[in-house]
Amino acid sequence: MAVGLSPPDPAALLPVPGVRLGVAEAGIRKANRKDLLLVELAEGSRVAAVYTRNRFCAAPVLVGREHRARAPTRAWLVNTGIANAGTGDAGLAVARASCAVTARALGIRPEQVLPFSTGVILEPLPIEPIERGVPVCAANLAPDRWADAAQAIMTTDTVPKAASRRIAIAGVPVTLTGIAKGAGMIRPDMATLLAFLCTDADIAQPALDELIRIAVDESFNAISVDGDTSTNDSFVMAATARAGHSRIDTLDSADGRALSAAVVDLARELACAIVRDGEGATKFITIDVGGGRSREECRKVAYAIAHSPLVKTAFFASDPNLGRILCAIGYAGVDDLDVQSIRLWLDDVLVAEHGGRAAAYTEAEGQRVMRAEDITIRIDLARGPAQATVWTCDLSYDYVKINAEYRS
Amino acid sequence: MAVGLSPPDPAALLPVPGVRLGVAEAGIRKANRKDLLLVELAEGSRVAAVYTRNRFCAAPVLVGREHRARAPTRAWLVNTGIANAGTGDAGLAVARASCAVTARALGIRPEQVLPFSTGVILEPLPIEPIERGVPVCAANLAPDRWADAAQAIMTTDTVPKAASRRIAIAGVPVTLTGIAKGAGMIRPDMATLLAFLCTDADIAQPALDELIRIAVDESFNAISVDGDTSTNDSFVMAATARAGHSRIDTLDSADGRALSAAVVDLARELACAIVRDGEGATKFITIDVGGGRSREECRKVAYAIAHSPLVKTAFFASDPNLGRILCAIGYAGVDDLDVQSIRLWLDDVLVAEHGGRAAAYTEAEGQRVMRAEDITIRIDLARGPAQATVWTCDLSYDYVKINAEYRS
Repeated sequence: MAVGLSPPDPAALLPVPGVRLGVAEAGIRKANRKDLLLVELAEGSRVAAVYTRNRFCAAPVLVGREHRARAPTRAWLVNTGIANAGTGDAGLAVARASCAVTARALGIRPEQVLPFSTGVILEPLPIEPIERGVPVCAANLAPDRWADAAQAIMTTDTVPKAASRRIAIAGVPVTLTGIAKGAGMIRPDMATLLAFLCTDADIAQPALDELIRIAVDESFNAISVDGDTSTNDSFVMAATARAGHSRIDTLDSADGRALSAAVVDLARELACAIVRDGEGATKFITIDVGGGRSREECRKVAYAIAHSPLVKTAFFASDPNLGRILCAIGYAGVDDLDVQSIRLWLDDVLVAEHGGRAAAYTEAEGQRVMRAEDITIRIDLARGPAQATVWTCDLSYDYVKINAEYRS
Repeated sequence: MAVGLSPPDPAALLPVPGVRLGVAEAGIRKANRKDLLLVELAEGSRVAAVYTRNRFCAAPVLVGREHRARAPTRAWLVNTGIANAGTGDAGLAVARASCAVTARALGIRPEQVLPFSTGVILEPLPIEPIERGVPVCAANLAPDRWADAAQAIMTTDTVPKAASRRIAIAGVPVTLTGIAKGAGMIRPDMATLLAFLCTDADIAQPALDELIRIAVDESFNAISVDGDTSTNDSFVMAATARAGHSRIDTLDSADGRALSAAVVDLARELACAIVRDGEGATKFITIDVGGGRSREECRKVAYAIAHSPLVKTAFFASDPNLGRILCAIGYAGVDDLDVQSIRLWLDDVLVAEHGGRAAAYTEAEGQRVMRAEDITIRIDLARGPAQATVWTCDLSYDYVKINAEYRS
């Protein structure tokens, strides 16, 4: 089902010095599937996290924020099946208890553990499977289990999502490996986009905090499947400082830029994999908006297109019904837009200019481009130097089917 | 297909003194269907209009605004089939020419005509069918053709939408009759929500201008099918002053309030009819948000729910997957919302409180309510006195089918 997306080659997923992973079949919601992941980070690792802005955020998000403020993080515990969201005080207690179980297994303090959950909202997360599963995870911790880890965090993803990069910083090899899950901002009742990225780079905490904000902005914050923002969305990064190069204190340096580029590139690959595996997706659509006065207005336009059910169904049908794109640009909320000067392309085909259809445009050309699986919508607002890119997918029968199916 | 909506009884559509209607089969896009409507307003009528805020607004919207500023309106000309949007300078010329044709037929000036179009975007509107059709409309002008008028403005609506009210103002009978079209903010490629409301009330222009803003706010601006705002959306009102009561100078009077209540009530009926005939709709959903600090924040919450594809597909499936509603509340953009104090009901069933599922809630109760065709989602934000209501429908296979079908 996923658009141009294959499972990662396990051999291509590089171990990151200072990071070990363990998984278990804990039976949280379904039997006989990996549903618990433990990530152990070596002492001295620095961690940065970006959490959902949803006011109904899940218990693990609240507990994770609290723990990060209190102690250096040494472990991440991730369960699938149940999101532990909309679960009130009982949910908070379970999230805390799962950290305590993990701390016992690893010989660290509970506040050194960050919990993450994904799955059904409004249902209680039982602690028993976690009590049983965490020791199993701890017993099989190993640096080369990234493929297992990517599988263990899936809910209704059809393809596990993981990737690695190796770069050189001051001549020293540095490794980055990340995994992600999510098949939409929210898959069916399965809440959540989760992404984890580890590197052995040595980077000071303020620079790491800045880096994660840049990376999330250029990746997970630039994708849309259905516009819903989940209760559990989390992107978290660890830098174990094991690579042996001299510490990066600022991103505004050659080493900082090299690391930053690799992190953004990897985060984008993971984010785009989520779109390619979007609910019922049959097309992968890149929306490039340029010529804006600000990045913000370019994103507004790109998101208006990405969120329009009419645009998305037209792409599903391979129907070059391109007035819908103009219409979405028109209501994007950029108030003083001069529609006469806007130009719109589909891949290499100029579709609209001077407030109407381009003279040379033909339906046959539009049809040709619409048949592709990967399509770029390019817009020139012609009023400034800013640019933004957003990735999305189409809206198909299967989106409705997946989301309308009774929770089972 | 429409949810609890039948075609209006033609006998129940009351003629409005001072208003005559004529229709024609002009063959604008398809043969053998009424596709042109002419509404003639008696001299001395006062007119108010609210147009789309879409920056890519259609040529008739631009010309209509221009004409309103220049002369008292005496006629409306409405065509279906082609929206005359995204058509550049050529489109403006056709909109102007259609007003000139109408002016000749009625012996008035072109700027006394407001043009309206609905249909496919980005395609040129030919002037010839309009030149042929306007004289036909003019020849059959009559006060009792509201049912024909409602039919003539349909695009892919499955049911014509029209309604009347009769009230007394200072003991004098006053009539209101309105028609509307639209089966979503935009039906397939068929752009537009159009609504026309006539009354023989006598109301001063400033009060009429205020009244249309109130009415649109409480009706057409409180509905959503897919969240798309079209290039052609227009709501226009005429008051012919033929009823014979003394003029209403302010809405803040007994007569003003009586007229205002009737207009709002009628506009709401038409707006809700549009939702009931929404693309692929199988459920009609009322979203009542109360206890807000401002009406604006209540609307934000209501619209977040109304626009969520996940909420809409759950309603289509009659699946009480109600975490999705909490999730939408959480990302509605009310930043300091205290989720602990929010309560959520489906009809009479309390679903959530204290940040989680209500203790007494059962899946069976949720299931029972979800099976109904008309369902109310009620939310108490518990932080103030403000309230807002939004009406929407579910998201079904047929929505995708209708919108993915090739334009034919």
